[in-house]
Amino acid sequence: MTTRATTTRYRVEAFHTPSPDRLVHLDDHVITVADGAIVSVQARRDDPEPVDVDLVGDHVVLPGFVDTHVHAPQWPQLGTGLDLPLEEWLGKHTFPLEARYVDLGFARTVWQDLVATLLAHGTTTAAYFATRHPEATVELGRVCAELGQRGLVGRVAMDHPEMTPPDLRDAGADEAVQLSAEVNLELDALGSLVTPVITPRFVPACTDALLSGLGELAAATGVRIQTHCSESDWEHEHVATRFGRSDTECLEVFGLLRQHTILAHGDHMADGDLRRAALAGAGVAHCPRSNMLFANAVFGVRRARELDLRVGLGTDIAGGDQPGVASQMSLAVAVSQMLEDGVDRSVSPGRRGRPGSRIGVVEAFFLATAGGADLVGLPVGVFEPGRRFDALAVRVEAGGTGRASSGLRFWDGVDDEPARRFDKVVRLAGPADLAHVWVDGVRRAGTAGSAAA
Amino acid sequence: MTTRATTTRYRVEAFHTPSPDRLVHLDDHVITVADGAIVSVQARRDDPEPVDVDLVGDHVVLPGFVDTHVHAPQWPQLGTGLDLPLEEWLGKHTFPLEARYVDLGFARTVWQDLVATLLAHGTTTAAYFATRHPEATVELGRVCAELGQRGLVGRVAMDHPEMTPPDLRDAGADEAVQLSAEVNLELDALGSLVTPVITPRFVPACTDALLSGLGELAAATGVRIQTHCSESDWEHEHVATRFGRSDTECLEVFGLLRQHTILAHGDHMADGDLRRAALAGAGVAHCPRSNMLFANAVFGVRRARELDLRVGLGTDIAGGDQPGVASQMSLAVAVSQMLEDGVDRSVSPGRRGRPGSRIGVVEAFFLATAGGADLVGLPVGVFEPGRRFDALAVRVEAGGTGRASSGLRFWDGVDDEPARRFDKVVRLAGPADLAHVWVDGVRRAGTAGSAAA
Repeated sequence: MTTRATTTRYRVEAFHTPSPDRLVHLDDHVITVADGAIVSVQARRDDPEPVDVDLVGDHVVLPGFVDTHVHAPQWPQLGTGLDLPLEEWLGKHTFPLEARYVDLGFARTVWQDLVATLLAHGTTTAAYFATRHPEATVELGRVCAELGQRGLVGRVAMDHPEMTPPDLRDAGADEAVQLSAEVNLELDALGSLVTPVITPRFVPACTDALLSGLGELAAATGVRIQTHCSESDWEHEHVATRFGRSDTECLEVFGLLRQHTILAHGDHMADGDLRRAALAGAGVAHCPRSNMLFANAVFGVRRARELDLRVGLGTDIAGGDQPGVASQMSLAVAVSQMLEDGVDRSVSPGRRGRPGSRIGVVEAFFLATAGGADLVGLPVGVFEPGRRFDALAVRVEAGGTGRASSGLRFWDGVDDEPARRFDKVVRLAGPADLAHVWVDGVRRAGTAGSAAA
Repeated sequence: MTTRATTTRYRVEAFHTPSPDRLVHLDDHVITVADGAIVSVQARRDDPEPVDVDLVGDHVVLPGFVDTHVHAPQWPQLGTGLDLPLEEWLGKHTFPLEARYVDLGFARTVWQDLVATLLAHGTTTAAYFATRHPEATVELGRVCAELGQRGLVGRVAMDHPEMTPPDLRDAGADEAVQLSAEVNLELDALGSLVTPVITPRFVPACTDALLSGLGELAAATGVRIQTHCSESDWEHEHVATRFGRSDTECLEVFGLLRQHTILAHGDHMADGDLRRAALAGAGVAHCPRSNMLFANAVFGVRRARELDLRVGLGTDIAGGDQPGVASQMSLAVAVSQMLEDGVDRSVSPGRRGRPGSRIGVVEAFFLATAGGADLVGLPVGVFEPGRRFDALAVRVEAGGTGRASSGLRFWDGVDDEPARRFDKVVRLAGPADLAHVWVDGVRRAGTAGSAAA
């Protein structure tokens, strides 16, 4: 059991990114948290009163990570079948597994394992596609509330008679909208950590009636939306053929492109699509690991940011095979470099890639924290008064003790500059390095006090 | 302290790949090991005598991983500076760090930390570029012998007056060859786990005299060679401009393209280069993580294998930011998919990538084990009589206990088929999942018996 003091004062060395290109190093600061909210962030010299938790010297504190795209029911298939073509992966493995969540006991076992594991990776907020089943979806919200993870949870609506398997198909558009509305109300009643999300799986799996019905539900209730958008050549072309317009345009027509709509992937969005989504206040859940396998292209994250699009990072469990957001950061940097450079040596260097595509580790960190928070529309991701205290304490040790299997340790004469320590922490820290994980001011996970290394 | 019984019998469920495209599942077998060598591998029903170690049921056993390319002195800079252009990364960070290994105490601290961490990741064999310094290089061999890792260790020879910093430059070609020869003899005396390697850093850093001198040393002594080859546009073009021939041809001219020569990266090798290297019995250390950042292209591993080239996997520490070979396997699959599909959505799908480039997870596993062993020329990587027993026991648990932060666990009805369990183990297992790591029949690392998770 954890207990919550009214006010807790943390003395920290911390990093955060209030804006995309600016890394802020809080070298010796006190963060005061009252009932889960940050009330002040001050230099230690300006705030010398006693603290409750002193982390300076052997820890680096970061905002918690926001995973903007997770398929919760795919958790048991993490790391399997990823060599398969997407259609086969879905039809042979994913859909049969998703159908099992009609069993609430199975669902609860999976959700507990999933949420606990993601918390251990420092995922303090996750946007979940649950399943078609209302009970299992509400249960996921309940597990988030119980284990203390900020969860955006959506019942997956899908009713297209040709594009969905019978046991995962809503009975019709009206019933599907009705079920989603009811689930949203139940999720809304689970407390401040749980946020309902209207979740059409993607355009190909939904009839026109369902898409417009969910758009109307969003307009009437103000509930956020998440869906997939232009993930692959196949999806992009499928929508273009059916509607004669892009996926993004189509979502707008159906009233689904709104403030904080989370568009998963977006790899094939053209500049016009990116502008349209930005204007609507929507954004993209960029999932680099998954996209390497399934997207047929790299999402141009730098271009999207130039067009003021909201962007966060996502694991796309289980299209991605890594449970944490941390590894998505260094992959986001790496795939942006690959987009810039190209991949095929037989093409001349000048024509091989798309110049101006690279992002750096600071921008990737912004996407994983403040950017993700901005995309999903929750007051986390930055250490400033008024935001909720979702944070990680990464244990760091000096000089070659050999304890950290991640390779994370600071060496004299090598890691003296703060920007370099930041670089190392962001690229290397794994769950074994996370001493504390706080959500809403309460410690929810972490290895401190255990022998785990 | 570990002690070695003359004979140890292990009862296992194991996987290995005696050939590149064939995954062999040993469902309930007994592996008998005498003085570090495998003497028999038999089905349990054919070998019912008592065993010493019974791992069936809660472990999956694999051959140990072979890391075919590691820069040992770069260990303290793991995960830093990777956004920089290669020249700046080398000049500002890498070379100043490498110069510190004149301090033997510093070297020993780093080597112990590095070797222990890699063993914890299941790297039972590593091919190391050490430093220019003879003492620090021999010390790395000594640490491998002490901690029980199979190490191929090379003194880095580099003497080019314009291409190397003064404090890392050999005094001249003759002295450099002489130093390398002496270090090789010292390494050779350290026991069966340590193998010397002749190591010209790469063609640009060496004078013609040094390259030919090292080629003669290899011919005279039969000592293996490792170097870089056609890593990036810059390196490839630099050699082409200096010699009017490809990096591969150039190495051949200098007598450096021999049986088991390890060519790191090779991303810009043309078909003719691949054929030439294959004919010589050389091969490529494919380093997918590093190449995503620095290589300007993806190594066409499938094409290379079609041309019968030896290929292993490498972390390229610290050009790559991950200590283990395991993550290189799934990245090798992913970057091959990116080469096949291309990266730039504005190019039409038919012209975007290079068809026929994809590899699967079985082939990636082959590269990490048997392929790497074949490349470096050591009798490991496959469970068959006559090979040394270098192996890993991955702890696996059934059904959602929430203990494994890697997400590695087996679910009823999901992971029933052996090929699927293999897939999951290969993609997800991290150091926390490795209960035992054996090298040469002796347990050297692993979390069994500790509370680490």
